[in-house]
Amino acid sequence: MERSREHDEEEEWERSTAAVRHETTDKISDKILVEDAFKTSEVPSWTKQITLRAMVTSLILSLVFNFIVCKLNLTTGVIPSLNVAAGLLGFALVKAWTTILAKVGFLKQPFTRQENTVIQTCVVASSGIAFSSGTASYLLGMSPLIAGQGESGNTPANVKKLSIGWMMGFLFVVSFVGLFSIVPLRKIMILKYKLTYPSGTATAYLINSFHTPKGAKLAKKQVAVLFKSFIFSFAFSCFQWFYTAVDGCGFSNFPTFGLQAFDKRFYFDFSSTYVGVGMICPYMVNVSLLIGAIISWGIMWPMIESKRGIWYSADLSPSSLHGIQGYRVFIAIAMMLGDGLYHVLFMLVKTIVSLIANNSSKKDSSIVTPGVTDQDAQIANYDEHRRTEFFLKDQIPNKVAISGYIILAIISIIAVPFIFHQLKWYHILVTYAIAPVLAFCNAYGCGLTDWSLASNYGKLAIIIFSSWVGLEHGGVIAGLASCGVMMSIVSTASDLMQDFKTGYLTLSSPRSMFFSQVIGTAMGCFLTPLVFWFFYKAYPIGDPTGTYPAPYGLLYRGIALLGVEGISSLPKNCLNLVIGFFFAGFVINLVQELLKRKETRFHIHRFIPSPMCMAIPFYLGGYFAIDMCVGSLILFMWERRNKQRATDFAPAVASGLICGESLWSVPAAILALFNVSPPICMKFLSASVNTKVDNFLEGS
Amino acid sequence: MERSREHDEEEEWERSTAAVRHETTDKISDKILVEDAFKTSEVPSWTKQITLRAMVTSLILSLVFNFIVCKLNLTTGVIPSLNVAAGLLGFALVKAWTTILAKVGFLKQPFTRQENTVIQTCVVASSGIAFSSGTASYLLGMSPLIAGQGESGNTPANVKKLSIGWMMGFLFVVSFVGLFSIVPLRKIMILKYKLTYPSGTATAYLINSFHTPKGAKLAKKQVAVLFKSFIFSFAFSCFQWFYTAVDGCGFSNFPTFGLQAFDKRFYFDFSSTYVGVGMICPYMVNVSLLIGAIISWGIMWPMIESKRGIWYSADLSPSSLHGIQGYRVFIAIAMMLGDGLYHVLFMLVKTIVSLIANNSSKKDSSIVTPGVTDQDAQIANYDEHRRTEFFLKDQIPNKVAISGYIILAIISIIAVPFIFHQLKWYHILVTYAIAPVLAFCNAYGCGLTDWSLASNYGKLAIIIFSSWVGLEHGGVIAGLASCGVMMSIVSTASDLMQDFKTGYLTLSSPRSMFFSQVIGTAMGCFLTPLVFWFFYKAYPIGDPTGTYPAPYGLLYRGIALLGVEGISSLPKNCLNLVIGFFFAGFVINLVQELLKRKETRFHIHRFIPSPMCMAIPFYLGGYFAIDMCVGSLILFMWERRNKQRATDFAPAVASGLICGESLWSVPAAILALFNVSPPICMKFLSASVNTKVDNFLEGS
Repeated sequence: MERSREHDEEEEWERSTAAVRHETTDKISDKILVEDAFKTSEVPSWTKQITLRAMVTSLILSLVFNFIVCKLNLTTGVIPSLNVAAGLLGFALVKAWTTILAKVGFLKQPFTRQENTVIQTCVVASSGIAFSSGTASYLLGMSPLIAGQGESGNTPANVKKLSIGWMMGFLFVVSFVGLFSIVPLRKIMILKYKLTYPSGTATAYLINSFHTPKGAKLAKKQVAVLFKSFIFSFAFSCFQWFYTAVDGCGFSNFPTFGLQAFDKRFYFDFSSTYVGVGMICPYMVNVSLLIGAIISWGIMWPMIESKRGIWYSADLSPSSLHGIQGYRVFIAIAMMLGDGLYHVLFMLVKTIVSLIANNSSKKDSSIVTPGVTDQDAQIANYDEHRRTEFFLKDQIPNKVAISGYIILAIISIIAVPFIFHQLKWYHILVTYAIAPVLAFCNAYGCGLTDWSLASNYGKLAIIIFSSWVGLEHGGVIAGLASCGVMMSIVSTASDLMQDFKTGYLTLSSPRSMFFSQVIGTAMGCFLTPLVFWFFYKAYPIGDPTGTYPAPYGLLYRGIALLGVEGISSLPKNCLNLVIGFFFAGFVINLVQELLKRKETRFHIHRFIPSPMCMAIPFYLGGYFAIDMCVGSLILFMWERRNKQRATDFAPAVASGLICGESLWSVPAAILALFNVSPPICMKFLSASVNTKVDNFLEGS
Repeated sequence: MERSREHDEEEEWERSTAAVRHETTDKISDKILVEDAFKTSEVPSWTKQITLRAMVTSLILSLVFNFIVCKLNLTTGVIPSLNVAAGLLGFALVKAWTTILAKVGFLKQPFTRQENTVIQTCVVASSGIAFSSGTASYLLGMSPLIAGQGESGNTPANVKKLSIGWMMGFLFVVSFVGLFSIVPLRKIMILKYKLTYPSGTATAYLINSFHTPKGAKLAKKQVAVLFKSFIFSFAFSCFQWFYTAVDGCGFSNFPTFGLQAFDKRFYFDFSSTYVGVGMICPYMVNVSLLIGAIISWGIMWPMIESKRGIWYSADLSPSSLHGIQGYRVFIAIAMMLGDGLYHVLFMLVKTIVSLIANNSSKKDSSIVTPGVTDQDAQIANYDEHRRTEFFLKDQIPNKVAISGYIILAIISIIAVPFIFHQLKWYHILVTYAIAPVLAFCNAYGCGLTDWSLASNYGKLAIIIFSSWVGLEHGGVIAGLASCGVMMSIVSTASDLMQDFKTGYLTLSSPRSMFFSQVIGTAMGCFLTPLVFWFFYKAYPIGDPTGTYPAPYGLLYRGIALLGVEGISSLPKNCLNLVIGFFFAGFVINLVQELLKRKETRFHIHRFIPSPMCMAIPFYLGGYFAIDMCVGSLILFMWERRNKQRATDFAPAVASGLICGESLWSVPAAILALFNVSPPICMKFLSASVNTKVDNFLEGS
């Protein structure tokens, strides 16, 4: 078998994915006076919003979502927005619990939407750590296995053996700083600039609808649908397991389009997770992935492989970064960096323009804060009044926030060099000095577009610090570690601002939000390394041909190598391609933006693929893009049949599909830990090989 | 690979399957004055009912249905009622044609329900031949390949090489006799005894509903659904094909419940045909099949196999009738004969009782002809009056019918011995003398219960004539050939009486019915051998381990061997088991009938499985029973969700599933003829064998 499967790249679509839901949400929540319906229901004090049952529920869901995110990180790194699922499942669990108690007569406290928001916030904070902790990206990139794949940079100073102890310590030290950085921003972003935060708004809409009598009926139906698709997905994954005696067997290696296409990684791998992810992601994301897969695996790689022995040595192992793998990894990185650079610049310009506009004239605010026009503001007057009132009720003084940030930063500056001796205290100080600015940019941009660019800022940090420290002083590790410090602040800023928006729209106290974020972050810091360790011990994580290739490990290390070694280590012509794709990544975005502004007739800009999405299959191949396009297709046909039902239930179905298969990975990993392997191998052989095998089996 | 797959038995459920639809049908068609709605539409004269377009449509559908029936015959022999599908497809084709013509402005003659009935009758007559021609049972049983599997009786006198020439000749000689035998019975059965003929009534209801304006809307939807499920089934079969490089590969060998269960032939083989068949068949049929599979393959065969070397020689080939295969075949035959004997006796008694009751008092007719009570008769007075009027309009004189029967019988008596020299003229004379009596019994019984016992009468003929002629004079061939002569008359009698009932309810002329039956029979006699020959040349038909095991070939030959050799050739203890199961087959029916009459509270009789159904998997194994139960499950869940939709569309979905996969067998067979084999083998290996294979492949 010559087939090998190496994979690559993680993402910020965590956020982007809710963009589709955004429009409808705004329309509904702004035109109807939501708070009018809730007039009679009392808002509990902030200490009563954080209940024991809410925390227990959060812990359970955090564990579930940690498994899901960890598994997604380790397979392809494409992570959909789980906010809606968190809200839905939180509602389902507490509702079931309170219903039982109410029937028995023990119910002391009714289930409020504030409590629901607290659960959702806590779970998002905790599963946010699973993403920003980098167990599948920068931390994994330090491990010897990944380092071995890179060939260069595989020196003791540039490798760090993973261990649950220092990982957990590192997370606890760096993760809480970000929380304090956003508290002062809260009022500016939400009250002053009235930013949209589509995901946060969508979640708030969902939670509000759950707690109005009519909404609860729909919610119950959604929960039922979610449960059904969950059961299906879990059962189907369990069924698939039996046919996967070893890697290379089973449904995940089904040559759906023939063996030749399979060799080029075009096949449908029957992953209900990615079908679900595809149903949640916007159509264009899925199509971009597919286009990327076709360009790279269908056209470019075969062409480069035909130069084998000319452009690069024919003796290299297929996973060597000096061979074909190098083209895959570095071209993917280049395109992502080009895309990232565009977005960072764009956001910076936009932020500055918007700030100037805000300062010079309040009237113009409608231009820079789309979604909230003056007319809307008047209609939603009562809503806004009441929301603002509750949002300002339980203050967190700026003094507390700023001193908290400084104290935690100092702790971090002292502690981190003990974990990574390659990083000096001044490196971390610099990081903490520039981080709040980037956090502000990211929170602002995310409020406008729903995209978080956390990992782009992280990648920037890798390049800066790894070239600063240099190869011989462990620049690779330094770069990757500083990426962690940077990402945890920047990503927290955007993630939790979404939650503040949700809290604002559900009249939840900012103080209860903050504490539930603190608790959620603590849960995340504790659970994430444990869950990762569970997978790490059970499977060969990072093995490019295995079930868990963890593509981002190598990609992040690749960026660090670029930082320390420069571009001299690339194979022939790779540099030209890298430069070309870097600019392509930038230019495609620019073209899209220009079209959006100038060409308003056919809206061609909607059909410009995203370079970030296109780059991911460069390394991984098209199989998960095909899964996701199947998800899109299902959603499309469903919408054509019955738009309303699709809108109401597609997220529930998708969440069920994702949760089911992801949860099956728990028993599967336990079985793997106990060395129980599946009994059957479903194998796909070409007719000629099959004849050989049959003869062999007959003879034996 | 030790696995082998031998199969056995064909069936009369063709009819039984429509029993479920029966109740609803009667209620609707009798309570509402159907003919009132049709008052304004003119009934064309009988010559105008048989149009050219109707005949062309019939020919196309005949070809399609011949493929379907032939394929079903050659795989498991379970054939569902295709009347509804014939009606539906006939409507769809002609409607499409007339709609196009109407749009262009060339439509001369509107599409009437009489024309639709003519098509349906013609198609049923033609595909009836595919069933009663015995290409997969008695004719195949004569072939050297099947004879070789039986060991005894494999002498030149008892073997006849198949050839398209004599097969077609034989069919033309024997198939038309039956038509004349039923013409005199027509008025007695339908007008005098007012028999129900559930399938015929259901089809008439369908056709009537198509041609009332509101009904056509539903019909159009049904056609759309049928088309969709057809496309799905066809595409899925095509997809499956690619993974079936050789026998033993692909979805049809999917060890769904593990490899051990697969060895005992318990697996879901992803056959959309049998899922569809399961959706049409009553629940109890499918459950009976499953029970039979569990009793035989789950319990009995493993027990008998543990006596290997004691009860039977351990050196025998797995397909030898003196080994385990003998138990399978003869126990299955015994149970079927027991069931058949019960039904023949029951029908005889019932017919006699009913005739006596009819003669002694007209008033009691409601007791013997359920479904048409006096009250119903009064309500349906106008309908009945009009229907009787048209039914009596175009007479076929009894004199013509009787002389036709005699002339054709004489031709047959002269011609058949030229084809089978083992049969003498007096054998055939005897057959034609007793056949009308049996035809009467069968037509009457079928009118009451919807069950045709044609193949039971055929089996009776095998035993009688093979023991009469004896082994050394070619008794096996003589028995099988006389089975053909008998079956074609008896089966025609019941099948075409259903069509007369349909004609009666749609005001179609009996004369047009008769001629369309004649044409349909001619089509069948011509198409059936051709279609069979197509499969016969492309695949190793009758190879028990192949894709087309054609189980009934060996079973029918087994009956003939029992007739000529007696029971001395059976392996040890087989006789005891055979006697036991023969009586069990009889007694189970008796118990059911007694429960039906005496125990009216819980209706336990509904839960008594059918011995006939239980016997089929004795030979074949449980896989198709599992398919059919999956069909049942789908139908059950659908009915729970939406009873009305399920009732309206389940037959369309099922027909689509059946037609799609069956039609794929045409291109598949053509590819096989041109030696194009699929490119991939989907193989299922145990983990240990897989390790061996991987090592082997690595080494090579």
